[in-house]
Amino acid sequence: MVNGIDRPLDLLNSAKGKEILVQLKTGKQFVGTLLAFDIHINVVLDNAKEVENGEQTTSYGLTFLRGDTIIFISPATKA
Amino acid sequence: MVNGIDRPLDLLNSAKGKEILVQLKTGKQFVGTLLAFDIHINVVLDNAKEVENGEQTTSYGLTFLRGDTIIFISPATKA
Amino acid sequence: MVNGIDRPLDLLNSAKGKEILVQLKTGKQFVGTLLAFDIHINVVLDNAKEVENGEQTTSYGLTFLRGDTIIFISPATKA
Amino acid sequence: MVNGIDRPLDLLNSAKGKEILVQLKTGKQFVGTLLAFDIHINVVLDNAKEVENGEQTTSYGLTFLRGDTIIFISPATKA
Amino acid sequence: MVNGIDRPLDLLNSAKGKEILVQLKTGKQFVGTLLAFDIHINVVLDNAKEVENGEQTTSYGLTFLRGDTIIFISPATKA
Amino acid sequence: MVNGIDRPLDLLNSAKGKEILVQLKTGKQFVGTLLAFDIHINVVLDNAKEVENGEQTTSYGLTFLRGDTIIFISPATKA
Amino acid sequence: MVNGIDRPLDLLNSAKGKEILVQLKTGKQFVGTLLAFDIHINVVLDNAKEVENGEQTTSYGLTFLRGDTIIFISPATKA
Repeated sequence: MVNGIDRPLDLLNSAKGKEILVQLKTGKQFVGTLLAFDIHINVVLDNAKEVENGEQTTSYGLTFLRGDTIIFISPATKA
Repeated sequence: MVNGIDRPLDLLNSAKGKEILVQLKTGKQFVGTLLAFDIHINVVLDNAKEVENGEQTTSYGLTFLRGDTIIFISPATKA
Repeated sequence: MVNGIDRPLDLLNSAKGKEILVQLKTGKQFVGTLLAFDIHINVVLDNAKEVENGEQTTSYGLTFLRGDTIIFISPATKA
Repeated sequence: MVNGIDRPLDLLNSAKGKEILVQLKTGKQFVGTLLAFDIHINVVLDNAKEVENGEQTTSYGLTFLRGDTIIFISPATKA
Repeated sequence: MVNGIDRPLDLLNSAKGKEILVQLKTGKQFVGTLLAFDIHINVVLDNAKEVENGEQTTSYGLTFLRGDTIIFISPATKA
Repeated sequence: MVNGIDRPLDLLNSAKGKEILVQLKTGKQFVGTLLAFDIHINVVLDNAKEVENGEQTTSYGLTFLRGDTIIFISPATKA
Repeated sequence: MVNGIDRPLDLLNSAKGKEILVQLKTGKQFVGTLLAFDIHINVVLDNAKEVENGEQTTSYGLTFLRGDTIIFISPATKA
């Protein structure tokens, strides 16, 4: 699974179409399907759901997340 | 609906003329019709309304929102 | 009124010479006549008045507002 | 007095040699004679005095103020 | 081990494939195997685990950490 | 003394070799002899002393201060 | 010792291979041997030790410190 990750954005590229977890600086998290990203780490999620303290609180559908509010992004392998 | 979103700004482009929800870093939200945006994610809303704790508090009409204060933008599909 | 706003700065351009409301990140607001702006959203207001909790607290006359302290700008259509 | 202000920096240019009020993000203000500024809004004041809650607290003489700490600048027309 | 570190990124380069500790501005730490980094200090960890007060709290697997949230990175020589 | 200050950095240039006061965003101040500065307002002080509430607390000798932590710099004319 | 410091980075260059003190914006300090730095003031320390309230709390060995978290750097002349 690690193969092919030479640059950080390679991980995001390999996660396109898959569910990811996005941790925001505000303390909240989003989960959703990664549709697109750019070099600023702006991302677009489909079926985006806000998560607070491990519970999904709000569904937003398609959502644009501004990159400078993001701490980390992880493909959601735990679910 | 996902078709055609290759880059994050494609979502904003497809939302022009539609109602969007904008979450600010201050904790407040705006809803309004997206008229324009740029690469800094500066956006102009028409019929902009400030939302706090789910309640619309103030109407501003046409409003310019500076991109660096934005956490996320979502087309308002819940209403 | 929406016609002609293709880019976010078009709204500021159309507001030149008119009264605008400027929301700062500090929580304070300014109202005044928009004289000039640039791509950093630095703005110059004439007859600038600071507003706190809806009340005008201080008059500053001509005022330069640094763009990176601004959350949103709205032509003052409510007055 | 408004004539000739096409860009935000025109106000600062017209204020050279005059007393200005500078509001910092820290909540403090400086008053002093504007000697110089640049595109980062770095400014140099002569006879700079720190103002807190409307009272002059400290005199600094010549002072360089870093632009990114500034909220607004206004020619001191109230004195 | 110090040999060959002429520029700061040389340390990250020499740590590829090894376990590192990443301290975030939020106060949390991550440990994991460094797979990739770029000039923004964006990093990708494999087997990423969040550490709080010295205890591993959550496992994320592959994780992209945004560089501007990072305080320091150290190869995990203590374990 | 004001002569020759056309740009903000001219003040710093004229203060080379002299004692300056540096106010940091953290609330602390440094005094010391200005040896060098650059366009980021990074400065190097000799005989740098940290000042808190008007009292010198720590001596650091030669010190590099990162520009983005600086609020203002003033030649120390009060001593 | 002051000779040869024309630009701020000259101090860092002259401190290579020597022990330095690094003050972070978080309030913590690091001491260690300076191995490398770049124009962003990213630094690599060897034998890096975290210092809190004057006491060494944790040893990290080789450590990369991100420049934008640094307030000041001083060669450790006090020890």
